[in-house]
This record gives sequence, C-alpha cells and structure tokens, in this order.
Amino acid sequence: MGSNSFRLVVYGWDPGRYWQHVDEIREAVRVSAGMSESGAIKKSRFKRALRTAVVFASFCEHSGIDDVRAVATSAIRDASNRDELLTEMRSQSGLDVQVLSTEDETRYGYLAIANTTTVETGWGLDMGGGSLQLMRIEDRQLRESGSWPLGAVRVSEKFLDDEDKASSKQLKALRKHVTKAVDGCDWLPDGGGGPFAGIGGTVRNLAAAAQKRAGHPDTGGVQGFRLSREALEELTDELAGMPPAKRGGVPGIKPDRGDVILGGAVVLGALMDRGGFDDIEVTDAGLREGVFLERFLDDRDPPLVNDVRRAAVVNLANRYQQDLEHPEHVAELSLQLFDGLRVAGLADVLGAAERELLWAACLLHDIGTAVDYDDHHKHSRYLILNGGLPGFSPRELELIALIARYHRKGEPDASELGPLARKKDDARLALMSAIIRLAEQLERSRDQAITSVRVEANGSGAVTLATEAAGEGAPVAIWSARRNADLLERVIGRKVEVAGPE
Amino acid sequence: MGSNSFRLVVYGWDPGRYWQHVDEIREAVRVSAGMSESGAIKKSRFKRALRTAVVFASFCEHSGIDDVRAVATSAIRDASNRDELLTEMRSQSGLDVQVLSTEDETRYGYLAIANTTTVETGWGLDMGGGSLQLMRIEDRQLRESGSWPLGAVRVSEKFLDDEDKASSKQLKALRKHVTKAVDGCDWLPDGGGGPFAGIGGTVRNLAAAAQKRAGHPDTGGVQGFRLSREALEELTDELAGMPPAKRGGVPGIKPDRGDVILGGAVVLGALMDRGGFDDIEVTDAGLREGVFLERFLDDRDPPLVNDVRRAAVVNLANRYQQDLEHPEHVAELSLQLFDGLRVAGLADVLGAAERELLWAACLLHDIGTAVDYDDHHKHSRYLILNGGLPGFSPRELELIALIARYHRKGEPDASELGPLARKKDDARLALMSAIIRLAEQLERSRDQAITSVRVEANGSGAVTLATEAAGEGAPVAIWSARRNADLLERVIGRKVEVAGPE
Repeated sequence: MGSNSFRLVVYGWDPGRYWQHVDEIREAVRVSAGMSESGAIKKSRFKRALRTAVVFASFCEHSGIDDVRAVATSAIRDASNRDELLTEMRSQSGLDVQVLSTEDETRYGYLAIANTTTVETGWGLDMGGGSLQLMRIEDRQLRESGSWPLGAVRVSEKFLDDEDKASSKQLKALRKHVTKAVDGCDWLPDGGGGPFAGIGGTVRNLAAAAQKRAGHPDTGGVQGFRLSREALEELTDELAGMPPAKRGGVPGIKPDRGDVILGGAVVLGALMDRGGFDDIEVTDAGLREGVFLERFLDDRDPPLVNDVRRAAVVNLANRYQQDLEHPEHVAELSLQLFDGLRVAGLADVLGAAERELLWAACLLHDIGTAVDYDDHHKHSRYLILNGGLPGFSPRELELIALIARYHRKGEPDASELGPLARKKDDARLALMSAIIRLAEQLERSRDQAITSVRVEANGSGAVTLATEAAGEGAPVAIWSARRNADLLERVIGRKVEVAGPE
Repeated sequence: MGSNSFRLVVYGWDPGRYWQHVDEIREAVRVSAGMSESGAIKKSRFKRALRTAVVFASFCEHSGIDDVRAVATSAIRDASNRDELLTEMRSQSGLDVQVLSTEDETRYGYLAIANTTTVETGWGLDMGGGSLQLMRIEDRQLRESGSWPLGAVRVSEKFLDDEDKASSKQLKALRKHVTKAVDGCDWLPDGGGGPFAGIGGTVRNLAAAAQKRAGHPDTGGVQGFRLSREALEELTDELAGMPPAKRGGVPGIKPDRGDVILGGAVVLGALMDRGGFDDIEVTDAGLREGVFLERFLDDRDPPLVNDVRRAAVVNLANRYQQDLEHPEHVAELSLQLFDGLRVAGLADVLGAAERELLWAACLLHDIGTAVDYDDHHKHSRYLILNGGLPGFSPRELELIALIARYHRKGEPDASELGPLARKKDDARLALMSAIIRLAEQLERSRDQAITSVRVEANGSGAVTLATEAAGEGAPVAIWSARRNADLLERVIGRKVEVAGPE
C-alpha cells in the first residue's frame, strides 16, 4: 500500500527451483494526495483505500491464496489518521497491515536491487510517491541508508503547477530543494559517481519513456535498462514543456502517473548531478519483490541469491524444464568448443562476456518446446525475451534470445538486434550460433553420451572436433553433428571434421 | 519409415488430459528412389535406411523413451528385399518394425483425418512417396478405401524429367494415368465433390506454398488451411515451369521435396478434377498421429475424440492450466452475455460460429501467464497461434487468438487478421472482446462467486447486466466489471450498468 498506488501482487513458486509473477491488481489510490497540509489522509482517499483493501482481501480469500503479506509505506506511516485507517482495514477486510518502518522499507528496496541488478558495490534509490530512500551497498550488503520526503507525489504537489506547464523557476526551486535536502548525506558521493540502481514506478516509467524514444524493441520491459543522465534531461525538458494532463500520454508513462512524473524526473536528475552518476540501472522489481524474496530465500541471511545473472537464467530454465541435465550438458560442450576455438585463434571476436551469454542461451535453448515442438527455437526466443532475465541488459537479453533461436535452423541475423546492435555483432552471433548448434547435435540423444569435445586446429587445414564418449559410441550424436557443421565451416572459413570417439 | 522420409516423432502426454509433439528427427532416406525397375531397394538406400534405424533406436534408448512403435509403409512393404532389410534392422538396431498392410496404412491416415479435420462425411486422401490412399468417410467412420501406386516419388520418376522443366505432354500423360487408375473406383464421386481432406508431406508442402503465395501470416502451420483447386493449378504451373532442382526453392516447399513435388501436385489436381472437389482441407497431422492417437485414445473404439474442435481447445487449455474451473466459468458468463446481447438485438453481427470461437477464446484466454504475467494476454495469443487448434481454419484460429489477446487492455484491431479479414470483422472482434473482458472481470477473483449474468435492455436507455452470486456478494467482481464496461458501451453505443447481486 504505497503513497501512489496499492498493488496486490501474486507470486507462484516451487521452493528452491523457481518463482514467477502470477497475477496482479493495481489501483491508483493516491493516499498521499492532498495530505501535505493537514497530515491526515483525505476523506475521499481514506474511503478508497479502505474499499481497495476489502477488494484485495476478498480476491485472496476467494482465489485460495493463504500466504498474504500486507505492507504499507511512507504515506500511511506518516498519516495522522493512520491508526484509524488500519483499524478500519482490519475490521472490514481482515487484513493485518504491517506499517513498514523507514528501515524496513529501505531494506526491501535493497533486497530488490541486490537480487535483480548488477550493482555489487554502489548506490541504490527507491522513489515512492511520498518518500525517497537512498542507500549505499558494499559487496552486496546494505551499509548506509536514509529517507527523505522527496517522493514524486509530494514534490509535485509542493513545487509544480497541477494545470500548467512547469516554469524554469519552478524546476530550479525543486532542484535546489533536493540538493539541499541531501546536502548533509556524507555517504552519497559528491560527484565521482559509480554504479547506481533504482526502483519504483517513477523510475520505471521514465526508463520506459526513454526506451521508446530510443526506438528499443517493445519486449522485456525496462529490466536492466540504463537510463542515462542525458536521456533523462531530454525527457524532463519534454515533460516540462507540456501541461500535467498531457504528460500521461507520453509513450512509456502510465496515464495515472502523468501528473507526478515530472516531479520525480527532476528529483532523480538532481540526485544524479549531486552524485555524479552517468546513468541509473533500472529493474522491473520493486519493494514487493523484496518482500517476496525474503520469503522465497528464507534459508539465507540476508536473503540474497548467490549470483544475480546465474540465478535469473536457472530460474527461467527451471520454469519450463523438469530437469536441466540436457541443457547443462549442451552448455558444457558449447563452452569446450568456445574455449577450443579461442585458443586456436578462431574466435577472437568473442570474450568472457560472450562466454556467459552463450552459457545462458544453452540453458534456455529448448524452453520453447513448451509452446510447440515445431519452431521451438523461435518460441525459446519469445519466452526468453518476454520472461526477462534480471541482471542482464536489454542488449544481452536479446543476444541470449538470438543464440537460442539459432541453435537450430536459419541464418543468424544480428540485424534483429535493431538499435541494440554493435560492431561485429554479426560475427559474434554467427559464431556462437555455430557453436551451440554443434553442441546441441553432439547431445542430440539427450543422454550425455558424448562426454567432451576438443578442438584440434593445426596449420590451416581442416579443424577437427575430437569427441570422447562414455560407453559404446554415440551414433546419433556424431551423425547429427556432421550434418550440422556447415555453419561453423562458413563462419571460420575452415573445413570442420567431427571425429567419432575411439 | 515412409517411402520418401523416415521420421522419429516423440509425443508426450498426460492420459485423458492432453498430448503434445515433443521431439522429432527426420531423414530423407528416399527408400523408393530407383526402385521401380527392379522391385528391390537400391544398395545405397538400403544402407542409409539401416543406418537411420540404428540412429533412431539409439536416440530412443538414450533419451529414456521406452514406448516405441516402429512402422513401415508401402515402399518397404512392396520391396523384394524387404525381409532382408527388416532382419538387418532388427539385428542392428533392435527395432521390431511392423510393416503396415494397405488397410493398416489407410486406417492410420483415416484416424489422423477424423481426429484433426472437420470432415465428418466426405473423402480423405493420404499421399505418400510410394502409394496413394483414398477413403470415404461417413459419420466419421471409415466406409471405403483403396490404395494406388500413385505416390509422389513413384509418379515423378515414371512420368517427369529429373533435370528439365516438365512439358505439357508429360503432365498430360501423368494426369491421364491418374484418371485411368482410379477409373473403376465407384465410391469416389464423379464430379459433384463434397468435403475432402488430405494428409502427407506432399499435401502439406503444397498447402504451405499456396499460403505463402496468398500472403498468410507465418504462424500456425497449414493446419485447417483449404487448398483450392485454382490455387493448386497456379502452383502446378509455376512448378512445371522450372527445373526440378529449383522447385525446392519455392517458399513453402522443403528443399528435399523439390524433385517430387510436381508429380504430387499433378496427381492431386487430377483427383480433385475427377471428384469435383473445390478444395482440400489440410492438416498438420499424418499417419504418425494416427498411430499415436490409437494409443492415446485406447479406451475408445474406433479411437476418435468426440468433437475435433472441442478436443483441440481442451487439449491446449489443459497443457498450460492445472484445472479449467476459472476459464470454464469465464466461458459460461461470456456465453450468457453473448446470448443476452443477441436476444436484445445488440449483437446481430454475431452468430453460432462466433459463439464457438468466443467459447474457445475463453478457455484459452489465460494460458499466456505460463510465459509471464505481464502482457499475458499477448502471450496467450502467441501460444494459441503457435500451438494450433486442429479443426479450426487459420482464420478461426487467428480470431480465437485475437479475442484472447483483447480479454484485457488495448483497442481490438481486426486489421491484425491481414488477408484473413472479412467484412464486419471489426465489429465482431470488438463485441466479442467487450464480452470476454466483462466476463473475465465478473470472474476476477477466480472463485465463481458470480454465478450468472443477465442482460436487461429495455427501450434505448442503459443496458443493465444483472448479476447473481452464491453466498455473500462479490465485491471484486462488481468493482472490476464496472471499471471495464467502457469497451462494451462504445461498441453497442449504450450505457452499461453492472448491477451487484441482491
């Protein structure tokens, strides 16, 4: 129950294997609206909050969800009529709402950031409607944090006009207010920057709008996107130049956020200037994932996955596959081919970053069979893009999806990366596709019969892929691999021979 | 083990609930090639057949598939060295290959047709590489059948040049040969036509090529497509005008079928002329599905689903959902709204056909949550299009997918039907989307709390949707439905009021 909206989010999970977002109801209750003067939640908002709580509780009760955690953040925490609201909620909905302390709120935001972004040592931001939390993270541990009344709803009401364009005077005043507010925070960098990640609807909406402006593909949400200071500035200018009623029509901005988005953008910009942050890494996760992950990872303290990127890949792989023996073996063989080609000087275009992407694609290459066997390589791409992989950037996600797509059939085409493409991506994608395609065939019978493969490339003649097998040969694997070596041959410009085990 | 190709097809199933195609290896062994003169499988083909059998058996053994049925069709059946081949196969691969009699072969083709097409009383065709089976079906029972040596490989070798374009003289001779061959078949119509369905790779490839020429979207395969006599004629002309080596490059035609596709096309055309068939309904299923379905439906004799279309929808619904309580209740409420709006004269654009599509969309509207909760309506569309629904035409499949897609969010857009669109589809799609959207909200808490809904439309004022509930009200449902009545209001041009249960 946030200052801007109330959300009911339902997660399904298989303990220790995977979790997924299953259902959601969102209501823009806006409890903090009109609250600043008196300190009390306005009557109309009070009623709406109550009604929403009743509806949410009824939903849970009737859909058999018995493990419910109801939490409230700053707007309710700070309201003078908070106890009255909580009592009414309990009596009408049966919900026992836990009002998070500033520390709790920060901690859940921290858990969301530490479990879904690449920030290991750096800073985090959680912007709500009422308050703003900042934190310093070191080796993935929360070291410092603070809370300021700089939420998007609050500052918009206080500093901006609710009918007219924003004047440069108003923007300047708000910026000054932010700078002054965080002035005494000695653990926030004073210029210099560093890794910085952010959560909250405002940040997500700003990122979505910036993505649309940059022409990014429409899949995968904002997960892993880096919103640059420049892109934020351009967006802020655009938003300031239109009346609040129009801001909700900017692609990427939710209509019911239109009137508070500019305030949030200005606060974020001012903070990035103060800290010297060039960009902010955005995640789809939020406080609610923090609350959920504490439960899902309740055998860990603090509840953190070991490695954000690995955990994301394994989570998605487990969602669609009973066991990972086959994909893990394809990954093993792929990495042997990758390393062998590197050593032979035949894969100079690939490095450690690509090695990880290839591994991820191997674990996920077959998930598309959940849709249909025919074209399952294309379905894998679709499921990867739409399932998302916290910790990976949109570009990395698309590359993983493309490698999986080309694990069988078709001519690898890096132009599908669109604006995310970089120089030599054609060569990178073709080579990784050639590798996974061969590894998949070497493991075509899904039985790990081929235990390893070694690249032998002497002189400039044919390259031999020498295989070893456990037990009695592996006719399917060798037969299949030989029929699928043509892509690698073309990519490295050498003949490729697959040698059966002896 | 067919005359043209050997296929290993793996099915997964949950008895009584659903089945799906899980894996496949295909090898163009072409055992019948060069066989016509001597009656024996050529040495090179014999070896290739043997090696493929070993590979397939090894695949099954190593991937833990213990329920294997190996069957062979006409080319092997008719080969003079058949016993030698079977003995070698058994000793080298362990596979005990069952040579299907003509009757067996026809029966499995019939089971594929009767379980995946709309033909209840009509004719069926199964064109292989070696032989052609024709059948007469009455009330979904197989009444008559016959087999002719008119398979695509056989006639191509006998009548067409393997290097050059086909001359009109050659085509004429082949046509005459076909007409003469089936001349004595008294249960095949002599003009007049009727429902006609076909299976086999040749028919599928011809259908795929005709679909591409017509600019159809690339999803859903050829399932349910009707290949018209005219489209077949155009395609035949195009294929005849190019050398065999180029025919495999025609979009929709598999490269390794290029040299025999024209022979198959001419045979099909001659048969359609003889029977007076305007079109032939195509299915993705084939003999292999017939063999599998006999096992899956082994509690029925003959092994037929009760209703092809219903079975297809329920099969797909069960694949992604543990139970169907919620989707079935959405279907029930949707059909109540549908019928009520029809009676009130507010849905004249909809009829019995649309009623069935709406029902199907309701059963499938939520399957996209298997991909991700966010945008799950779009994922449902993707899964429906790519999973396919035997018994429905490509146009019907796309309509079902679009209704599911618009069960939440977005402005229904019938232009997504592309070349499949018909007049008034905008109105149809908008109305069905409005209905499912309201029904979904009335069942928002997934608990069947709203037991029924009645449309009350007196005069020209507001239309009331009067709800009934079991037990104590249904706050989520009423609250949600009221917030989602705007689409229906716009579509019928009337105010819509959702009345809570009393």
